Amino acid sequence: MPALTDLTIAVLGGTGPQGRGLARRFAAAGLTVVLGGRDAERTARVAEEVSATIDTTVAGTDNRAAATAGDIVLVVVPWDGHADLLRGLVDVLAGKVVVDCVNPLGFDKQGAHALDVPEGSATEQAAAILTGSTVVGAFHNVSAVLLEDPEVSRVETDVLVLGDEREATDLVQELASTIPGVRGVYGGRRRNAHQVEALTANLISINRRHKAHAGIRVTDV
Amino acid sequence: MPALTDLTIAVLGGTGPQGRGLARRFAAAGLTVVLGGRDAERTARVAEEVSATIDTTVAGTDNRAAATAGDIVLVVVPWDGHADLLRGLVDVLAGKVVVDCVNPLGFDKQGAHALDVPEGSATEQAAAILTGSTVVGAFHNVSAVLLEDPEVSRVETDVLVLGDEREATDLVQELASTIPGVRGVYGGRRRNAHQVEALTANLISINRRHKAHAGIRVTDV
Repeated sequence: MPALTDLTIAVLGGTGPQGRGLARRFAAAGLTVVLGGRDAERTARVAEEVSATIDTTVAGTDNRAAATAGDIVLVVVPWDGHADLLRGLVDVLAGKVVVDCVNPLGFDKQGAHALDVPEGSATEQAAAILTGSTVVGAFHNVSAVLLEDPEVSRVETDVLVLGDEREATDLVQELASTIPGVRGVYGGRRRNAHQVEALTANLISINRRHKAHAGIRVTDV
Repeated sequence: MPALTDLTIAVLGGTGPQGRGLARRFAAAGLTVVLGGRDAERTARVAEEVSATIDTTVAGTDNRAAATAGDIVLVVVPWDGHADLLRGLVDVLAGKVVVDCVNPLGFDKQGAHALDVPEGSATEQAAAILTGSTVVGAFHNVSAVLLEDPEVSRVETDVLVLGDEREATDLVQELASTIPGVRGVYGGRRRNAHQVEALTANLISINRRHKAHAGIRVTDV
């Protein structure tokens, strides 16, 4: 695998808080970042807004163009559109490392809860659709609020990285660790991605109780 | 709820490493503890062995007698016998706080993975069976090795406590926090217990990779 600084990081669904926040932190760390969104013009404007908060430039275009430009492609879309988006990008994502960051959650009066996913998890759904890509799951539990907050210099959390290919999980751990305070930690195979995605519902419960932006650290490693 | 020191803590399935380890730490913290096991005599012997490692006495008897004696009853049995054990104890567990600590996991050459549970989780299965009890999920991710190690004075991990009744989850958070290093943290409702149970599979993967005894901390709370 080449050095991260030689790669382009694409963030699909990059106009939402999580996508904007990750793009902002990666760009601030000196990486080349392109945001993807449904609408190229709107995404370019969002990318300009993100760029204005840091001392570098994030590009913005539509999801397909961003997926084509990216070497590592993060998928940060809402769960609703997850499968459809990926089915339309199978060709351009082939041969690339795709990082699924999507949490299949439902919300009701009692808060958030995990949704049932036929493939087991969003990450496994991505792997089932993108048969020519190397699919890794990561960045499920990172607070978008903290990522976007210009006052927050360090985001104190570990990012669990799930995947079956060591080179790819190593690379994504390294990517996570470019964010000050964040540590990328190998979290197991793709078949164990569901619970890491679903754990976001627990963090939302914790946030409600404590008015916090909870994350997790793995102890003893 | 009365003070923890006025209550008896029963640990069903207390002859295994996790049950022994929890009993040992609770007794060392000054709580009254009774181990339950399938065989009363064997469990009494295990309880004597546990007592010998600390400066107090843990009682040991069969699961039914321990469940009867306990005010707070921890269930630390293997997943295989979980439903059957609880079905046989519905009467004696009525009116009590039952803490389910069971992780429904499978193991194969690629390590551990979460099993499908018709009720959603071990905790929800317990709640479905024990309709007269207050069921809380907790202690899923604590290393038995660390709990049992006399050289380990502090177990550096948070215990996520899951339940729908605030008094009960508060009490179990307090119980968890009697173990030096451990902090009991509210982790959400019972419907979000599955992912906390299943997360143990990820910790096992992390342990394999790092030769560690990984736990988790919740940040920002």
